[in-house]
Amino acid sequence: MQNRTHNNGELRLVNVGQTVELKGWVAKSRNKGGIVFIDLRDRYGITQLVVNAETADAAILETATKVRNEFVIYVKGKVIERVSKNPNMATGDVEIDVTDLQIISESETTPIIVAEETDALEDTRLKYRYLDLRRPNMQRNIITRHKVVQTIRGYLNRHDYIDIETPMLNKSTPEGARDYLVPSRVHPGEFYALPQSPQIFKQLCMVSGFEKYYQIARCFRDEDLRADRQPEFTQIDIEQSFATQEEILTMTEEMLTEVVKEVKGIEIERPFRRFTYDDAMERFGSDKPDTRFEMEIKTLNEVFKESGFGVFKGTIEKGGSVRAINVKGAADKYSRKNIDALTDFVKKYKAKGLAWLKFTDGDFAGPIAKFFGDEEKANLQNAMSVEDNDLLLFVADKYSVTCDALGALRSKLGKDLELYDPNELDFLWVVDWPLFEYDEEDGRYYAAHHPFTRPNEETREYLTTEPGKCKASAYDVVLNGYELGGGSLRIHERNLQNEMFKALGFSEEEAYEQFGFLLDAFKYGTPPHGGIALGIDRIAMILVGATNLREVIAFPKTASASDPMTDAPGVVSEKQLDELNIQLKK
Amino acid sequence: MQNRTHNNGELRLVNVGQTVELKGWVAKSRNKGGIVFIDLRDRYGITQLVVNAETADAAILETATKVRNEFVIYVKGKVIERVSKNPNMATGDVEIDVTDLQIISESETTPIIVAEETDALEDTRLKYRYLDLRRPNMQRNIITRHKVVQTIRGYLNRHDYIDIETPMLNKSTPEGARDYLVPSRVHPGEFYALPQSPQIFKQLCMVSGFEKYYQIARCFRDEDLRADRQPEFTQIDIEQSFATQEEILTMTEEMLTEVVKEVKGIEIERPFRRFTYDDAMERFGSDKPDTRFEMEIKTLNEVFKESGFGVFKGTIEKGGSVRAINVKGAADKYSRKNIDALTDFVKKYKAKGLAWLKFTDGDFAGPIAKFFGDEEKANLQNAMSVEDNDLLLFVADKYSVTCDALGALRSKLGKDLELYDPNELDFLWVVDWPLFEYDEEDGRYYAAHHPFTRPNEETREYLTTEPGKCKASAYDVVLNGYELGGGSLRIHERNLQNEMFKALGFSEEEAYEQFGFLLDAFKYGTPPHGGIALGIDRIAMILVGATNLREVIAFPKTASASDPMTDAPGVVSEKQLDELNIQLKK
Repeated sequence: MQNRTHNNGELRLVNVGQTVELKGWVAKSRNKGGIVFIDLRDRYGITQLVVNAETADAAILETATKVRNEFVIYVKGKVIERVSKNPNMATGDVEIDVTDLQIISESETTPIIVAEETDALEDTRLKYRYLDLRRPNMQRNIITRHKVVQTIRGYLNRHDYIDIETPMLNKSTPEGARDYLVPSRVHPGEFYALPQSPQIFKQLCMVSGFEKYYQIARCFRDEDLRADRQPEFTQIDIEQSFATQEEILTMTEEMLTEVVKEVKGIEIERPFRRFTYDDAMERFGSDKPDTRFEMEIKTLNEVFKESGFGVFKGTIEKGGSVRAINVKGAADKYSRKNIDALTDFVKKYKAKGLAWLKFTDGDFAGPIAKFFGDEEKANLQNAMSVEDNDLLLFVADKYSVTCDALGALRSKLGKDLELYDPNELDFLWVVDWPLFEYDEEDGRYYAAHHPFTRPNEETREYLTTEPGKCKASAYDVVLNGYELGGGSLRIHERNLQNEMFKALGFSEEEAYEQFGFLLDAFKYGTPPHGGIALGIDRIAMILVGATNLREVIAFPKTASASDPMTDAPGVVSEKQLDELNIQLKK
Repeated sequence: MQNRTHNNGELRLVNVGQTVELKGWVAKSRNKGGIVFIDLRDRYGITQLVVNAETADAAILETATKVRNEFVIYVKGKVIERVSKNPNMATGDVEIDVTDLQIISESETTPIIVAEETDALEDTRLKYRYLDLRRPNMQRNIITRHKVVQTIRGYLNRHDYIDIETPMLNKSTPEGARDYLVPSRVHPGEFYALPQSPQIFKQLCMVSGFEKYYQIARCFRDEDLRADRQPEFTQIDIEQSFATQEEILTMTEEMLTEVVKEVKGIEIERPFRRFTYDDAMERFGSDKPDTRFEMEIKTLNEVFKESGFGVFKGTIEKGGSVRAINVKGAADKYSRKNIDALTDFVKKYKAKGLAWLKFTDGDFAGPIAKFFGDEEKANLQNAMSVEDNDLLLFVADKYSVTCDALGALRSKLGKDLELYDPNELDFLWVVDWPLFEYDEEDGRYYAAHHPFTRPNEETREYLTTEPGKCKASAYDVVLNGYELGGGSLRIHERNLQNEMFKALGFSEEEAYEQFGFLLDAFKYGTPPHGGIALGIDRIAMILVGATNLREVIAFPKTASASDPMTDAPGVVSEKQLDELNIQLKK
């Protein structure tokens, strides 16, 4: 048996008359009036093979009759022009008149069908992942992911960033999400932690003077999983010295533009639009707004401050907000029952209820319509640009609750009502994030990102006096309502860092206990630096048009962080635990 | 403060007259007759700054006098031609006449000196790794490593290999080295294992039809460490379907040739020389022979089978071997005391002793010389090509002991006597490895590599009858006596796999218990496949001329698998252990 001369995606009319050798998987075979047709598949495509009972060698015909789906075969034959061409196949103008055919490897009937679409259950797909990955769309997804990573690397290499590997066996830190731990055999009673991100190491690379660092880094978080979370995930991690925020944003935009160009052949517009965090929350109720459709949230406190509707007036008097979205032209699409379902939906986001009004035949209708006078109605109509058949949905609550509830509702309606082209790619920045979050229970401020995030120049003066006013030099890049990632400039001056710790209520000793070696490092000439980290899995997921990360991860875990194929995690021997000086808890 | 206009490695005579802005670290500053000279360093190089007391602004002069080593500064000035040029510096023709100078970040006195060479202890270097990495040679090492990885990726991308990430959280398997374990929180009592290699996943990628896979993969082994071992290491992992051994070897050679060309600017010769495993053991006593120098091991059983020296004769009669190396022209360099030290050395490799003869003034001398007759001496002289002042060193023992002891001794002498150019790069293949290793204690064969390694065509017939005769389609690539890595063709046929398990003494049930999901996968059309894995750390180490992996790993671990900088591993909270359902052993 020889090497193949071609792959299964490349033969064209120009090859007619050539003798070729191919290898691959049987995607389909059928016997049609004494002629056996076989679709031969590999990573590159499908080629049609023909074994004619009247002209073919008896042994070859017998083999051809024997092959079944997913057999691996070798074939030799002459390229001929097809009588009835298939314009849907790249190789559809030709077929192979088979002169030799050998079975390389047989296949039992596969538990999932190897085809573009599948109706197999998620668990079956994961148990037989090696077959699921044979499906052409999964092959395309994984190859697209490869291209995403290569394009990112190519961009960064060209721009003088150095790929530096940082350790996986690290020290557990009390901040952040839950760590995956690794018991140490050599140091009884001690543990490594798998990295949640290479944050501290990339900052140390800046202290080391590498100036431009990157890494495609595997990261780990032991948290309960959702569709867009996996216990291990991959991020492109970048850090740069002597760079301004503007330079980091531009670099990121250039890099992502190159990725989209390479993967989708689309030129996206730069610069990306920017929203301040406050603006994003005000208009879209989200720190990762989906701006592919309008339906912006409006604050109606001015309209309702003297409202006849007590709930609205009372909320405003107590310092809350009345906010609403206008579902344009949808009044007739939503029955009371539908709206009840939406009410249940917003309650998940802590809203106490969902008030509504329909505007039909020139007037508002709905259970609360009677509370509003003419002027109030006119103001509302004006504020919300109300037209015939519009549906208004209101949440009256604490400002943050109105944002969360209406933001989520807006996203849901945008999707339900198909208000956007799912193929559109809508990149944007969210900037000027709060530097601190105030925790009412603990009565203190926490770092919104981490304590090395830099306050921006405009609000730095409030650091020790009114921390709540401080904005960070931090930025998130958002695509179609998904956070792709984010970053910040870091603090590199000791006095500023001390002020930051003071604002967080840390004594110098406490600060040192938690971040000692990084603070030590900062003593020896630290350049200004900043960076960004973007989720590779998520970028790939959106670019292939999937809604689950498992579609772009070759061997992902289930929602319970297990792998049905290998049965990981599993029980280990007593001897292994003994060596690690640990035992199971009774 | 503006962005810099140039880096510190690029200014030349052609820039004279330009006003430039630079940033970087103070590498050195000195006040010489009222003129302050500062060497400004960054990743790209060093530029000399000049602040002249007579012409400079007073404030600038004051700042210039204040800066100390490792301060980060900003400087603006005019490029001028140096009076006394420095031909050892890329920028040595010019200097900067400073018109503005600002301190960006101060530095305390560094605990290690940031210079090309260091005499700091290993532990100090690791504790202050961020400073150690500032040293120009460490910068070069890490950048060289980056180039190695990028060149490998470039080669593989161009040749259509797909970068596929495989999981880090896997299942522990009883075979192989000791696993690092990760307790599962969601599945109490169960554990993940960090991968020792992506072996099984890369084979599954072949079952999936990806045809050409690669990954720069982090791997883990919880073993006691040596200079060339780290608990986590990085390998370039490659697997390919429908490929012959010859194709995999050629691909590897092309890839490594490209790496050497890129990193060292040297064109290495292809194809690499090949040694069978048996030949390598016979001639060099090693499965990773260093062939930069000769001093081959000779078997002298023919010469000594009737020897007057009872030890030699007796060893041969009992089925052992008498083997020797000739240390050319070194008789006068080795005193009895020196040779006693060599005897102690070979005893570490289980040799019972080291016999020796010197050839001076036309005759053999030494304590055993008296046992040999004239004919025996003549035969020995002939067999070992003995000339005046040669030193012969003998080991009489089991064949395997003679290989280990003389192989190690040969390497030591080659180094001690400087028998090779340390800059030479000597690549070679070791092929035709044994498929099995016989364990005398257990009285059974074990797979020498793993049970999916393919026997070669010539010896396949002995698989179930005389397994000891079977050779594997396995290959190692060796550079300067270091194993860079290796691989094999794999078994893809079920009947061959069953024979293999039979040879290993596994019942079908036992085989399934250990390798179930891979055997399942092989039921559904498996292409012939094979691959290779090479250690990135080791390649980089040899190419930068280092002898310790820590010189090419940014943040390595000590020999006790700890990190003096971050203090990893560390103690974790009871709460963390509780969540993982484990406790420390009392």
